[in-house]
Amino acid sequence: MTGEWVIVATERARRPETFAPKKKEKKTVLPARLENCPFCTGNEQLTPPEVLAYRDDQEKPDTPGWSVRVIPNKFPALEQHENGNLPDFEGAGGWNLFQDFDGYGVHEVIIETPDHNRQLADLRAEEMVLVLRAFKERILALAKDPRLKYVQIFRNHRQEAGASIEHPHGQLLALPYIPPLLEKEYRRCQEYYAENKRCLLCSLLAEEEKSGERVILKNDFFLAYIPFAAPLPFTTWIVPRQHASSLEEGEKGWEEQLAPLLRDFLFRLDEKLEDPPYNFYFHLAPLRSGPQPDYHWHLEIIPKLTIVAGLEMATGTFINVSRPEEAAQFLRE
Amino acid sequence: MTGEWVIVATERARRPETFAPKKKEKKTVLPARLENCPFCTGNEQLTPPEVLAYRDDQEKPDTPGWSVRVIPNKFPALEQHENGNLPDFEGAGGWNLFQDFDGYGVHEVIIETPDHNRQLADLRAEEMVLVLRAFKERILALAKDPRLKYVQIFRNHRQEAGASIEHPHGQLLALPYIPPLLEKEYRRCQEYYAENKRCLLCSLLAEEEKSGERVILKNDFFLAYIPFAAPLPFTTWIVPRQHASSLEEGEKGWEEQLAPLLRDFLFRLDEKLEDPPYNFYFHLAPLRSGPQPDYHWHLEIIPKLTIVAGLEMATGTFINVSRPEEAAQFLRE
Repeated sequence: MTGEWVIVATERARRPETFAPKKKEKKTVLPARLENCPFCTGNEQLTPPEVLAYRDDQEKPDTPGWSVRVIPNKFPALEQHENGNLPDFEGAGGWNLFQDFDGYGVHEVIIETPDHNRQLADLRAEEMVLVLRAFKERILALAKDPRLKYVQIFRNHRQEAGASIEHPHGQLLALPYIPPLLEKEYRRCQEYYAENKRCLLCSLLAEEEKSGERVILKNDFFLAYIPFAAPLPFTTWIVPRQHASSLEEGEKGWEEQLAPLLRDFLFRLDEKLEDPPYNFYFHLAPLRSGPQPDYHWHLEIIPKLTIVAGLEMATGTFINVSRPEEAAQFLRE
Repeated sequence: MTGEWVIVATERARRPETFAPKKKEKKTVLPARLENCPFCTGNEQLTPPEVLAYRDDQEKPDTPGWSVRVIPNKFPALEQHENGNLPDFEGAGGWNLFQDFDGYGVHEVIIETPDHNRQLADLRAEEMVLVLRAFKERILALAKDPRLKYVQIFRNHRQEAGASIEHPHGQLLALPYIPPLLEKEYRRCQEYYAENKRCLLCSLLAEEEKSGERVILKNDFFLAYIPFAAPLPFTTWIVPRQHASSLEEGEKGWEEQLAPLLRDFLFRLDEKLEDPPYNFYFHLAPLRSGPQPDYHWHLEIIPKLTIVAGLEMATGTFINVSRPEEAAQFLRE
């Protein structure tokens, strides 16, 4: 998808089971509710007013009774403001090398459950469906601001992966430009489509399904697999089997199909790799782009099992010390 | 240099001194020599034969008496081999999506001192000169293999930054293609040069020198500063003030000028941020490219003070929670 080479180490390859972090002392038992956790139920007044919630009682926002709650980040990286004099992002600023402007965007938190002591993998499938639906609903709502070009949904699991609050939550950042890694994927997918009259990820998916050796899980709608050129150990993609460029363009009922598969995958991570920290994120077509024949949305999940160091930072080339086929088999079995 | 936007957080900005890792218990006192450390003097037989060493006695390789020693990595990510049927890297493989080949390249370790208990920052300037000279000599030697296109020199300081061996060392990986992040810099520098008849980094450098607010250190040959669009807290660039595209093209005597400046910088990191883990790497013109008017070599140093998480991995956009000007002042004072 990026056109970049990956070095799969052979001299230094490690067996899949060696990536499990050292046995932790018994898992800390968390309380179901924490008095001072801003994401716990009953503490709704500790956060900015909610922008979306799924709750029993539709009448009273910012009170208990919700199962998923979306709020503005209290310390946002970007905000919407009136003096949105945005620069010409496409024109690379005309070589104005010291260009800056007031950041513009939206930074929200998706609180996935009112319970402090449950993780995403612990949610029942029907609860996870609501989380996925909240992602989609927020994308549709944010698409109304024409200055926003892309919504990045992401999740950091555990402090080692960048989570600063323990209570289970995802985040989204709406940006006023197409971010560089997406731009790179879009460009390559467009080139492939122009030459092959087919979506690049549809082609990759067909091959992965056929060979099966890197597949971890599948159901009617989705395939979870470790890509042929995975940059890091256990990097996993979950891809809709029917072409769709973004969540709102997805086949009807995709949330109900993704929830149990994602749950099963996260459960395997927990069981087989001892609940490692991980990051996951969606890669979607730009806001308001409608159905795109050349771009195919997907979810990338990266367990944090090794350290990204000087070589990777310098070059953008990754050395993967785990064979994708072995890692997939380990999680599949 | 990359053309990418950075979000400098204002709502969540942190004061420079807050980046110092929590006070460690007294630093561990390391022995000057470890019986089983393959990089310690006296243990030369534990490593593959050296490819370069600076030593008192020129006669006997792989014996004590050296001050800098370069060896092949015992577990190389890439190796030179005879059946070097390399693919057409430029042609993106003609949409062969599952293309692989036997990795080809060179992976070496630069042991910076025979003493187990000294860090790069502890070397005397004249000792560090030898380390820098070894980098340059290896580049010149590796340039003789036409299949190698780029040599990445890098250093991981401390385990948290990816160092698997405690004994002070740098590494180099010679690659059979131009790595993606370099390709991106080259392309942008070429575009700038074509339009402005000037090197992009020469332009940036002139502005940074003039304003001075992001400068940490300088001497006759080098400027150390935090770039205007630094992606991470305390990201520092050390740049030769006179244009040169690679180490072997550098102004005569650059090693003698870089050594004390780098030493001073690393000393400040140690003092002010409590010896944080860091990665550093050189960005150079391609092997054998000769003097390039549009590319300007430099050293990038990234202290590991925050966690690169889901947003950055997904988008390539970084949120810097430290203002470059404040961070530079903190290290300058």
